[in-house]
Amino acid sequence: MRDESGIIEGRNAVIEALRSGRTVERIFVLDGSHEGALETVKREAKKRGIRIDFADRSRLDNLSPSGAHQGVVAYVASFNYAEVEELLSKAEERGEPPFLIFLDGIEDPHNLGAIIRTANASGAHGVVIPKNRAAGLTAAVAKASAGALNYTGVARVTNLGRTMEELKEKGFWFVCADMQGESMYSLDLTGPIGLVIGAEGDGVSRLVREKCDFTASIPMKGEIDSLNASVAAGVLAYEIVRQREGRG
Amino acid sequence: MRDESGIIEGRNAVIEALRSGRTVERIFVLDGSHEGALETVKREAKKRGIRIDFADRSRLDNLSPSGAHQGVVAYVASFNYAEVEELLSKAEERGEPPFLIFLDGIEDPHNLGAIIRTANASGAHGVVIPKNRAAGLTAAVAKASAGALNYTGVARVTNLGRTMEELKEKGFWFVCADMQGESMYSLDLTGPIGLVIGAEGDGVSRLVREKCDFTASIPMKGEIDSLNASVAAGVLAYEIVRQREGRG
Repeated sequence: MRDESGIIEGRNAVIEALRSGRTVERIFVLDGSHEGALETVKREAKKRGIRIDFADRSRLDNLSPSGAHQGVVAYVASFNYAEVEELLSKAEERGEPPFLIFLDGIEDPHNLGAIIRTANASGAHGVVIPKNRAAGLTAAVAKASAGALNYTGVARVTNLGRTMEELKEKGFWFVCADMQGESMYSLDLTGPIGLVIGAEGDGVSRLVREKCDFTASIPMKGEIDSLNASVAAGVLAYEIVRQREGRG
Repeated sequence: MRDESGIIEGRNAVIEALRSGRTVERIFVLDGSHEGALETVKREAKKRGIRIDFADRSRLDNLSPSGAHQGVVAYVASFNYAEVEELLSKAEERGEPPFLIFLDGIEDPHNLGAIIRTANASGAHGVVIPKNRAAGLTAAVAKASAGALNYTGVARVTNLGRTMEELKEKGFWFVCADMQGESMYSLDLTGPIGLVIGAEGDGVSRLVREKCDFTASIPMKGEIDSLNASVAAGVLAYEIVRQREGRG
């Protein structure tokens, strides 16, 4: 069974989804069961490197929209992922210096959707997210993107740092959002750029931050010391727009 | 009974909350019942101009955290509201031209919380919201504000347009976010200012827009034609910061 929320449940439906090559984000399997079809689910998931979580029956009941999960619930991508190369082609087509937004561990689907929307509105050529510890392209994300996901590609990579290295060889500069960084107004953000936004709370992880050429801070004028991740992405993306337009 | 979510349920608890002067946002009462204590709830709520919604039993069951609602569920403010005058005093204390953010019908608590957070970070002196058709200061809003609600005052007024008129007499300029407006980069946003952000979807309502001195647009460079309301508020608030700092 499959419903609009991007959830597939039941043994055969999940096995079919796995074999058909659909992008399965995550699978919850009944803990302690060695029933044949569930073993098949686990084997097919492992083959494809898909994360399996073991859950007890009451958790599965909660995850299951219909209640008829037969011991397995899978989250599938509502949208397909793009390749990083496709995002670069978009910049080339438009004759613009590439502008990508890298998200280091954004787990909240509303934030991810809002950032995809901002990427589209600010003229970014795409969004890059990591495979692990991050929200994927679920129906909630598509909804929060307010349609932007139909236009703006999202690439999912195994290792953000490695992708950054590869793009640096192609002339990219990476700027990390970091409250300890230099004021965003003092940086030149006009060339081929990757804007890196970290997770709520933790910020950009050390390994990713080490790959950045600059850290950019948004001035904090009150008592609190950070913005919501999607707001920070918007403020920084529009500083890039302003500089590219030569305004202000 | 009362729990952390800002919900009070049960006849006596709701009557007590009303009589104690707590800020009750909204009350759901069992439809068709004329039971004595429920009549008292309705009378006390009416006296205070609090909105009453009638709901059937299954809706109340859904709204009720414990299930023991006895026909009435109330949403209470988790934080107290400020007066507009207090917000102005804050600007005066700091020796800054006042900067307030007006929200015309933001209904999503995550957006309201994120905007209060942005108001604090961008040095705004407070947020003004209308009494009707808007999210109030619930626990969800406080959480999304990431602590900013402890520092940044939120005033709730009966009529946004009237408050705007009063502030214009004190030298305020009002700028409405509107995708049809002039580019935000072309406007002078350095004086005493009220930034007006409209609801997701509908934008700023006609009556409020008519009170604005300017409309400011954020450049839209992609296929979609608007940003998430809290992102738009962030981008505009930081354009005000940039101009006030004389940067760029």
